[in-house]
Amino acid sequence: MKNICILGATGSIGLNTLEVVSLHPEKYKVFALSANTDWKKMLELCEIHKPTYAALVNSDAAEHLHRQAPDGVTVLSGEKALVEVAAHKKTDYVMAAIVGSAGMSSTLAAAVAGKRIMLANKESLVIAGNLLINAAKKSGAELIPVDSEHSAIFQCLQGSKSGLSKIQITASGGPFLNTPLSELALVTPSQACKHPNWKMGRKISVDSATLMNKGLEAIEAHLLFALKPNQIDVVVHPQSIIHSLVHFEDGSILSQLGLPDMRTAISYALSYPERQKSGVDFLDLTKQQPLVFLTPNTEAFNCLELAYTALKIGKNAPATLNAANEIAVEAFLNNQIGFLDISKIIESTLEAVPTANLDTLVSVMENDQLSRQIAKSVIESRA
Amino acid sequence: MKNICILGATGSIGLNTLEVVSLHPEKYKVFALSANTDWKKMLELCEIHKPTYAALVNSDAAEHLHRQAPDGVTVLSGEKALVEVAAHKKTDYVMAAIVGSAGMSSTLAAAVAGKRIMLANKESLVIAGNLLINAAKKSGAELIPVDSEHSAIFQCLQGSKSGLSKIQITASGGPFLNTPLSELALVTPSQACKHPNWKMGRKISVDSATLMNKGLEAIEAHLLFALKPNQIDVVVHPQSIIHSLVHFEDGSILSQLGLPDMRTAISYALSYPERQKSGVDFLDLTKQQPLVFLTPNTEAFNCLELAYTALKIGKNAPATLNAANEIAVEAFLNNQIGFLDISKIIESTLEAVPTANLDTLVSVMENDQLSRQIAKSVIESRA
Repeated sequence: MKNICILGATGSIGLNTLEVVSLHPEKYKVFALSANTDWKKMLELCEIHKPTYAALVNSDAAEHLHRQAPDGVTVLSGEKALVEVAAHKKTDYVMAAIVGSAGMSSTLAAAVAGKRIMLANKESLVIAGNLLINAAKKSGAELIPVDSEHSAIFQCLQGSKSGLSKIQITASGGPFLNTPLSELALVTPSQACKHPNWKMGRKISVDSATLMNKGLEAIEAHLLFALKPNQIDVVVHPQSIIHSLVHFEDGSILSQLGLPDMRTAISYALSYPERQKSGVDFLDLTKQQPLVFLTPNTEAFNCLELAYTALKIGKNAPATLNAANEIAVEAFLNNQIGFLDISKIIESTLEAVPTANLDTLVSVMENDQLSRQIAKSVIESRA
Repeated sequence: MKNICILGATGSIGLNTLEVVSLHPEKYKVFALSANTDWKKMLELCEIHKPTYAALVNSDAAEHLHRQAPDGVTVLSGEKALVEVAAHKKTDYVMAAIVGSAGMSSTLAAAVAGKRIMLANKESLVIAGNLLINAAKKSGAELIPVDSEHSAIFQCLQGSKSGLSKIQITASGGPFLNTPLSELALVTPSQACKHPNWKMGRKISVDSATLMNKGLEAIEAHLLFALKPNQIDVVVHPQSIIHSLVHFEDGSILSQLGLPDMRTAISYALSYPERQKSGVDFLDLTKQQPLVFLTPNTEAFNCLELAYTALKIGKNAPATLNAANEIAVEAFLNNQIGFLDISKIIESTLEAVPTANLDTLVSVMENDQLSRQIAKSVIESRA
C-alpha cells in the first residue's frame, strides 16, 4: 500500500489523480491533499477520500475547512504545510501538480526526502532544475514525468537509451495554429483558453496557445533526459494522438500514443515500472483523423524560439524566461497586454536580467523575484 | 567480434544484412554465406566479403562457384551444408533469411546450437513454432525478429510486457488495397508483385497482396510473444511508417516507426540490446503523407481470416496453411490459378488435412509434404 500526497489536489491533474487512485484502493491510500484556496472543493474531496492531512495555503480557507472537515482529517495551513506533507515520513508518492513556481519548494522538499515524485509541475524543473535533480540523485528520489510528452519519452526509453539521436516533442499547435499572424494581436484570453484537444487550466492553456509550453517542455526534457538543445525538436501534430517520439541512430523511432487524457500518464507514474487500468478508453486508430505533422511556425509563435535561446544560454536564463512568462500570461489574462506582447515582455526581461548561476534555493528565489519585478516594470512602461 | 552466418545471402534480406555488417567491420565478420543456386551473385559476394564458408544448395552451382571462388573461401554444397554453417561452432549470429519452408532445418539447427537467430524466415516459426521455441529455450538461443512488424513489437516490449492488452500488426494493404473485389479475380502475377512501399521477393509480394503475410505474422506473433489470438489485431496503414503497435491496459500505446527499409530491423537484430548506425535515413514526419489507419477488408482478402482460423485450431493447422499457401502462390505465379483461387486452395487443403500434433521434426516434415500434395491435387482437380 502506497501513501499518496497530492499537491494541487483541486486542479485538473489532482482530480484526475484521485480518479486513478480510486480505481486501485488495494494499492494506494490518499494520505494528504493540498490546495491553494478552494476549501469547498477540498471539503468535498476530504469527504470522499478521507485523507490524513488536508493542507490549504490560504489561512482563511484553512479555517473554513477546519470547521467542517470530517473526523480524522487534520487540516494544515500555509506554504510550509505543503512542504510538511510532501516530505512527511509516511508519504510514499508525491503528485507535484501545483501550477507555476508556487510548486517549487514542496517539490524540492519531496526530492530531498527521497520520495517518488510524479512531476506535473514543469516549472520546478525549469526554475531549479539542477537543484531538483541533484537532490533527487542524493536521496534516491524518483522523478517520473506526468506531462503527456515527457511521460511518452520516459516510456519509450524504458528499454534502452542506447543510440538515442534526438527526441521530438509533439505540439497540438494550440487554438491559433491556423490563425494568421495579423490576427494574433487581437485574440482574447477566452479564445486563448479554448484548447482543441486537452482540458487544462487557464495559465497552461495560454502557454499552449503561445507554444511556450513546448519551450518549457524542451527545457524540462533537457534536464530529465540529459539531452543537448540540438537533440530536442518540436513538431506540430494537431491530432494530439502521438504524444512524443524518440529517434535512434539506426533510423528507428519509438513513440507513445493514446487518447489525449492525462490519466494514462498519471496512472503510469503511479504504477511504474508496471502498468494498471487507468480508466482511459482503448484508442481505435481507425476512428481517428489522419495523423499529420507540421513544422512549428516560429515567426508567429516566437515564445518557442525564446525558450531555445534561454536553454542555450543556460544558467538562470530558463528560470528568468519562466518568471517573465508567468507575469506576462497573467497580464494577458487580465487584459493588460495583447497576445503578441507576451513574447515581447519575455524577450525584454531576458535581456535585462543579468546572467548568474543558480546554485542555492536562495539564489533561485532571488532570481525569480528579480525577473518578476523586471517583467512587471516592462509591462508598466508599455502602458 | 561476432561471426555472422547469412542463410539466404543473395536475397534482399541477405544483401541488406551485408550492407549493415559492412558499416561495422570492427564488430562483425562475415563468416558464412549461403544461397540456393545463384552462384554468380555468390561469387561476387565472396569476392567482396571473403567469408570462410560459402554454401550453395544446388551441387552444380556449388561446383561452378568452387572453380572460381577466391582463396580462403571454402565452398560447401547441399541442404546439409546450410545446417553445417548455421550450427558451426564459430558462428555467433545466424541471419535466417531463406524464404519458405526450405529455411526450416537450418533455422532449427541454429536454435539447437544456441546461436543468436535473426529471424527473417517466418515460415520456420509458422511450421515448427513449438519445436523452434523449445529448442531455443533449451540451448539459450536468442530469437530476434527481423520482420519489420515483429521487430517493432520486440522493440516496444524492451521496457516491460506488464499490462500488455494487445498488439496491432500494421499492413500496407498491398497493391490491391483499393481494387474492387470484382476485379481481383483477374489481377496478374506482375501486378501482385508491385508492392507500393517495400522491395521484396515475388513470393512475399504475393503474400502481401493477399494479406496472407499478415496472417503468417499473426501466427508468428502468437509464438514469439506468447499472445492469444484475440490479443493480435491487424490494421491497414498504407503509408508503412508505423511498423506495429502495442496496446497496454492503461490506454497507452507504444509503437515503432521509420522509413520502410529493412536495414533498421536487421541492424537492431545485430546490435540488440544496443543500437548502431544502419545506413537508414532519418524519418522526417513533416515530409510524409498523413498517417491513415483502416480496418482490413476480410471479404476481399480471405487469407487473413483463414490464418486466424488456423491459429485458433492450433496444432498442425498453421503449418498446413503455410504449405498450402506456398503451393497456391507458386501456382498463381505460374499462371495456373487466379488470384482469388489462392485462398480457395488453402481453405480446401485445411479442410482435407487431418488435425495432428507436430512434436517432432519428422511429423513436421510429413505434415508439410502431405499438405503440399493435397494442395497440388486440389489445384489439379480444378484445372
